[in-house]
Amino acid sequence: MIKVAIMGFGTIGSGVAEVLDINKKSIAARVGDEVELKYVLDLRDFEGDPIQEKIVHDYKVIAEDPEVAIVVETMGGVEPAYTFVKTMLEAGKHVTTSNKALVAAKGAELIALAKEKNVNFMFEASVGGGIPIIRPLNSCLTADEIEEITGIVNGTTNYMMTEMTEKGADFNEVLKDAQAKGYAEKDPTADVEGYDACRKIAILTSLVCGQQVDFEDIHTEGITKITPTDIKYAQAMGRAIKLLATSKKGPKGYTAIVAPFLLPASHPLYAVNGVFNAIFVHGNVLGDAMFYGSGAGKLPTASAVVADVVEMAKNLDKNIPIEWSSKKLELVDYREWENRFFIRTTADKVAVERVFGTVTYVQAEGVTGELGFVTEKISEGDCEKKEAELGNILQKIRVA
Amino acid sequence: MIKVAIMGFGTIGSGVAEVLDINKKSIAARVGDEVELKYVLDLRDFEGDPIQEKIVHDYKVIAEDPEVAIVVETMGGVEPAYTFVKTMLEAGKHVTTSNKALVAAKGAELIALAKEKNVNFMFEASVGGGIPIIRPLNSCLTADEIEEITGIVNGTTNYMMTEMTEKGADFNEVLKDAQAKGYAEKDPTADVEGYDACRKIAILTSLVCGQQVDFEDIHTEGITKITPTDIKYAQAMGRAIKLLATSKKGPKGYTAIVAPFLLPASHPLYAVNGVFNAIFVHGNVLGDAMFYGSGAGKLPTASAVVADVVEMAKNLDKNIPIEWSSKKLELVDYREWENRFFIRTTADKVAVERVFGTVTYVQAEGVTGELGFVTEKISEGDCEKKEAELGNILQKIRVA
Repeated sequence: MIKVAIMGFGTIGSGVAEVLDINKKSIAARVGDEVELKYVLDLRDFEGDPIQEKIVHDYKVIAEDPEVAIVVETMGGVEPAYTFVKTMLEAGKHVTTSNKALVAAKGAELIALAKEKNVNFMFEASVGGGIPIIRPLNSCLTADEIEEITGIVNGTTNYMMTEMTEKGADFNEVLKDAQAKGYAEKDPTADVEGYDACRKIAILTSLVCGQQVDFEDIHTEGITKITPTDIKYAQAMGRAIKLLATSKKGPKGYTAIVAPFLLPASHPLYAVNGVFNAIFVHGNVLGDAMFYGSGAGKLPTASAVVADVVEMAKNLDKNIPIEWSSKKLELVDYREWENRFFIRTTADKVAVERVFGTVTYVQAEGVTGELGFVTEKISEGDCEKKEAELGNILQKIRVA
Repeated sequence: MIKVAIMGFGTIGSGVAEVLDINKKSIAARVGDEVELKYVLDLRDFEGDPIQEKIVHDYKVIAEDPEVAIVVETMGGVEPAYTFVKTMLEAGKHVTTSNKALVAAKGAELIALAKEKNVNFMFEASVGGGIPIIRPLNSCLTADEIEEITGIVNGTTNYMMTEMTEKGADFNEVLKDAQAKGYAEKDPTADVEGYDACRKIAILTSLVCGQQVDFEDIHTEGITKITPTDIKYAQAMGRAIKLLATSKKGPKGYTAIVAPFLLPASHPLYAVNGVFNAIFVHGNVLGDAMFYGSGAGKLPTASAVVADVVEMAKNLDKNIPIEWSSKKLELVDYREWENRFFIRTTADKVAVERVFGTVTYVQAEGVTGELGFVTEKISEGDCEKKEAELGNILQKIRVA
């Protein structure tokens, strides 16, 4: 019998308890032993709920119980999650977390601590919800050098962009709808400004390069400035606007960015709609691959957490190495990254061509009084300079 | 230094040598030791080629060399691959193969033998080329009961269906083009009749249920009967025709089938075009997920083989369990599986409705002198009976 504790009994935490219960038999068969929930750490008492008898309010009860082998952290946020997780690892317990804020900020340190204690710190659910991506990066794509990793890793904004595309609705309207449906939080900043996606691409890039990538270093733009007019242009180009979190390895090193991109219909991420997430990977020998699934939601995310529990339960005496050192990776300045850019302006063609040279104009249905055009491939830095020179810029969206 | 041998120096085998060379450094970093190619077993001498010095013609040289820890089998076909692989496992060597015929026929036995010898028998490249799917099923989706697994697992036929859809060309025309481009073999039977896909879904289903699924038990239809008229109907329905290999778990057990299906645009597999492969999985807690990538090709497939080599090199003294016993699984008769069916007939509406009851008619552009309709959900067996009763059947395609 392997005893588990859950810290934080919100949506994901209660989902983990549910999955451990629903699939009790098949999990026991895979592990070769029964996996049982012993404690739930939460501030609340859950009076009258069957979970009540497992509730504890002090994390030290869990840390000090030698019976508990595996701890699930589903509280969210850096503190007190960090303190609790660190204590559990120091007490020789395996820990899995769904908490991207914690992993992005403290991943390298907690991985090192787990290694030192010969236990495991896993975080499959911290990126892409139920989609297996951390384990595939760590144990499947091991023959490759990963040259690009690009994800639609935020379900809220992908739902919103899909709705804006399909219904022609504007940002605020779609946000209200997403909030009403529970897809967006009351304070949607972390999602719509790209902060959530930024932490996730920091984690993925750290795993790909094996070093610490600080999310604060990643240039991040959200979707708040995308308008129905932009969508019309996208449709005229046969493209879709998606919030991408992407990092690429170039001759000088890794660059990462979070921003809306115009994706062609031929791109595997083009058809990823609604609350679904997907992560596209390009390996130097594998070529293109993509992992698709539910990026959020109670049970899908809990499925990923429990997959970590199963892996740890099968390796109770063994640290499975994860290459992610605390040595900081200096990202190449995003301004050096070359892209084509779609730009909308009230300037005239003479000015546009004087500043940007050869461009391709785009005409969107019913849009007048402005110009829309796509630049040749230029660096982000160049583009910023040219925008300042041209002036009268209404919008800029990267073209993938 | 870990020494490797490759048996069969064709496209995949030479790709494996290339990947081991191109990514030598990163592979060594992941394994914690250098991985070096010592022997290549082939009938040819490769005179003047640098590989010449590693060529051996007798597999026993490899089996009897204690220095060789890992053997790669990329010969194809059941024999002599089976004899060679068995000998290697018996000699205490780890084996990875890209050979779906061997895995479908002898997988359970070779997995058991590897376990007995405390080595590993792995086969990531046998399904979906470079796409990680065997390892994800075995070690990532472990919190779930897999209720459905459906793949586009044959690049040749997917390329052909994509071309037929995009160009309106007929089967023979597209086949010639595919052969000219090297996407189809001179004798295309194994691909176009679905036999290749059949072996792959047998492997996937065996992994999902943990028992031996005999590919001979799987009802298999290819794409040879698909016509440009069918494509027109598909387009009128906003659907795409794809050759799917699929198995589902129902209340009575598992059913599997290989056949062309009409997929709606909302299905994740709808947008999988050209030579790409993808495998869709539905887990009882995960929900829908999909793994997409290059299903064939020298380097992508070699990437999957080498990922097995890395995994085995990291676990030289440990058998990683794979649940696939030799106990045969009796599949539920495919005739019990319920589907909607698209049917074309020269019979009239009165006859159609007398036999099939409520149906939905489809009108394809420029098609006259026949009726196209979609049935309600009925069993395969019922549908066959009704077809016989109606007569004058031009086509039947399942609707997913």
